[in-house]
Amino acid sequence: MKLLDSGLWSLDRGRMMKSNKFIIHKKDTKTKARRGTLTTAHGTIESPFFMPVGTNATVKAIPFEDLLEMDSQIILSNTYHLYIRPGMEVIKENGGLHQFMKWDKPILTDSGGFQVFSLAKLRKIKDEGVEFQSHFDGSLHFFTPEKVMEIERTLGSDIIMPLDECVGYPCEQSQAKSACQRTTLWAKRSKDFFVKNFLARNGQLLFGIVQGSSFKDLRERSAKEIVDIGFDGYAIGGISVGEPVEVMFESLDFTMPFLPEDSPRYMMGIGMPDQMVMAVARGVDMFDTCIPTRYGRYGTVFTKQGKLVIRNGEYSVDQRPMDESCECFACRKYTRSYIRHLFNVGEILGLYLASYHNLYFYLQLMRNIRSAIEAGNFAEFQKEFLSCYNSTS
Amino acid sequence: MKLLDSGLWSLDRGRMMKSNKFIIHKKDTKTKARRGTLTTAHGTIESPFFMPVGTNATVKAIPFEDLLEMDSQIILSNTYHLYIRPGMEVIKENGGLHQFMKWDKPILTDSGGFQVFSLAKLRKIKDEGVEFQSHFDGSLHFFTPEKVMEIERTLGSDIIMPLDECVGYPCEQSQAKSACQRTTLWAKRSKDFFVKNFLARNGQLLFGIVQGSSFKDLRERSAKEIVDIGFDGYAIGGISVGEPVEVMFESLDFTMPFLPEDSPRYMMGIGMPDQMVMAVARGVDMFDTCIPTRYGRYGTVFTKQGKLVIRNGEYSVDQRPMDESCECFACRKYTRSYIRHLFNVGEILGLYLASYHNLYFYLQLMRNIRSAIEAGNFAEFQKEFLSCYNSTS
Repeated sequence: MKLLDSGLWSLDRGRMMKSNKFIIHKKDTKTKARRGTLTTAHGTIESPFFMPVGTNATVKAIPFEDLLEMDSQIILSNTYHLYIRPGMEVIKENGGLHQFMKWDKPILTDSGGFQVFSLAKLRKIKDEGVEFQSHFDGSLHFFTPEKVMEIERTLGSDIIMPLDECVGYPCEQSQAKSACQRTTLWAKRSKDFFVKNFLARNGQLLFGIVQGSSFKDLRERSAKEIVDIGFDGYAIGGISVGEPVEVMFESLDFTMPFLPEDSPRYMMGIGMPDQMVMAVARGVDMFDTCIPTRYGRYGTVFTKQGKLVIRNGEYSVDQRPMDESCECFACRKYTRSYIRHLFNVGEILGLYLASYHNLYFYLQLMRNIRSAIEAGNFAEFQKEFLSCYNSTS
Repeated sequence: MKLLDSGLWSLDRGRMMKSNKFIIHKKDTKTKARRGTLTTAHGTIESPFFMPVGTNATVKAIPFEDLLEMDSQIILSNTYHLYIRPGMEVIKENGGLHQFMKWDKPILTDSGGFQVFSLAKLRKIKDEGVEFQSHFDGSLHFFTPEKVMEIERTLGSDIIMPLDECVGYPCEQSQAKSACQRTTLWAKRSKDFFVKNFLARNGQLLFGIVQGSSFKDLRERSAKEIVDIGFDGYAIGGISVGEPVEVMFESLDFTMPFLPEDSPRYMMGIGMPDQMVMAVARGVDMFDTCIPTRYGRYGTVFTKQGKLVIRNGEYSVDQRPMDESCECFACRKYTRSYIRHLFNVGEILGLYLASYHNLYFYLQLMRNIRSAIEAGNFAEFQKEFLSCYNSTS
């Protein structure tokens, strides 16, 4: 870890850690849940929070006006996808990602690492970076940590994730170890680039990503190395890559003790509603997943009792709303019978209504979580939610 | 025409014609354009007007809130499609079509005739009715004029179209003649059923449909027979079935002189913006076509200058709105560059924005037409519109 001894890192680490962009207003006494605020260049976000996924500069099927209406505080977009299409020249000509999609609230962009490792073809990883073929047209590209930072600067993200190496599950310990080492190396180079080239910073935040697969010692080591470099927040990466839920929470539990109390913690790519509640109880502050919109497009909607497959014949004349306890406009207005019909005949309004409800459900769940922490009864909230929610439905 | 001599028809014809549901407020002096109002059970509609098409109990890609926002006065839905899916039992259980899709403004339903003749398989037409196989599952069905009226009563339409026989283009005169005769026969039976079974009427209007393909004598004869039966309004059917535009307008011109001045005239299934302007000049009051939403879904948008294919590479960094003279929210907010990107990556927001703009364009065109008639300068409006609009773009 010789790089860590350089004055640059410790100096800058101090600067970054003192930025006070994240403030914890209340800690739950019975769990590790926290109620806070994260300040970005495009506004302050109440935590814990969920980020709707807008891969291609749009949250699938949902106009931005609806995201505002349902009080989405931030959205996530994908560096890899935007780099491939429309490409950086188009984003630049449009004045950055906010201006391109006319969203003036915060944006987090991932690093593209996950997509390079899951979508791209013929990737060759070396310490310098990763060479890959576009999943779209087979064209050859080379991502270095520096290049990814450059892309995210062009996008104008409020929360920037550095390039990391993400492994699948199951995975050999040796492979997971090598990915951790490269992730640390790339994290240093990313921060170096950030410090040198984002001098004005414009309020942009840089997060670090912890890897380590399901191995306790690797998780600890990765967390310590990433925290040593010093970032504005810390993400638990390499989860939700095919492992059982128990293993996912184990990996989380291996990591959390080594993340600083006063920084935001981001559990990447999860999850189901019950999993988010359980993760908040462990001290997680941020979530993202395409589940609400993806499930919505395929006709599965979330309810207080669990998932409901709206296409099913049993709903053909059902006059109830998708979720009887939901107050979203789709549930206040439409019957299951109507929405089932829309899916049966392949109408866009169906997937719009289901996606809208699901996103509302996720955002409302986060509002309820925040209220419960504020009111000092998060443990009770968790117990009641989990007793009602059937995760296997 | 022996049936026409029965006291029932003439008696009822008098009743229907005296209903004064359609009032002409102003007639243009230089053209045959008229500015009127048509009163239905779900509200009064300013004419001339355009009806967005909601085939499956939804206007494709456009939530009903948007239709209200862009001031759509009425929508059209399809009897055949709703009869096949979700089926009448589901509509009944939901309390009718208005309640099913939560649209409390007027609805016009077509008779299903056009779909039976264009979509259904293995149809057998006889005077009693038409037997056909569902295009969806091959199941066998039999539509009679009476059954179609029954279906439309269950739907609860505000403007009801009776079953007719629609022929394609080109078509032998003998075939067109036989279709006209059957259309007249069915029109009589439809009205008979309406008079006997819609006693309360609930403000529901029944229209007649004129056929006759492109034959002058058939158009005249069909118009006279249908008008003799007596309806609340008259539709020019059997157009937009593959014929050249000149032939379509010829068929219209063959028909119009025989339609009563004081009844609404509905040109079914057209058209392009310039065609609607030209039809209004000939005295047409009502239009419907799926063009704005269908073209929108495939990335073609309407502008004052004509069609624009937003997918084209030339728009990749174009910072202008879809239509520079449009004030719809999509044009006020988004660049061609962004919308082109959305189409390129197959995002629903793209087809939503293009469909939204196109529908707004059609409805705004109708508002402009109405204003021009009111202001007494429709002829100038028509000239200016057509000189600017390139129909071959």
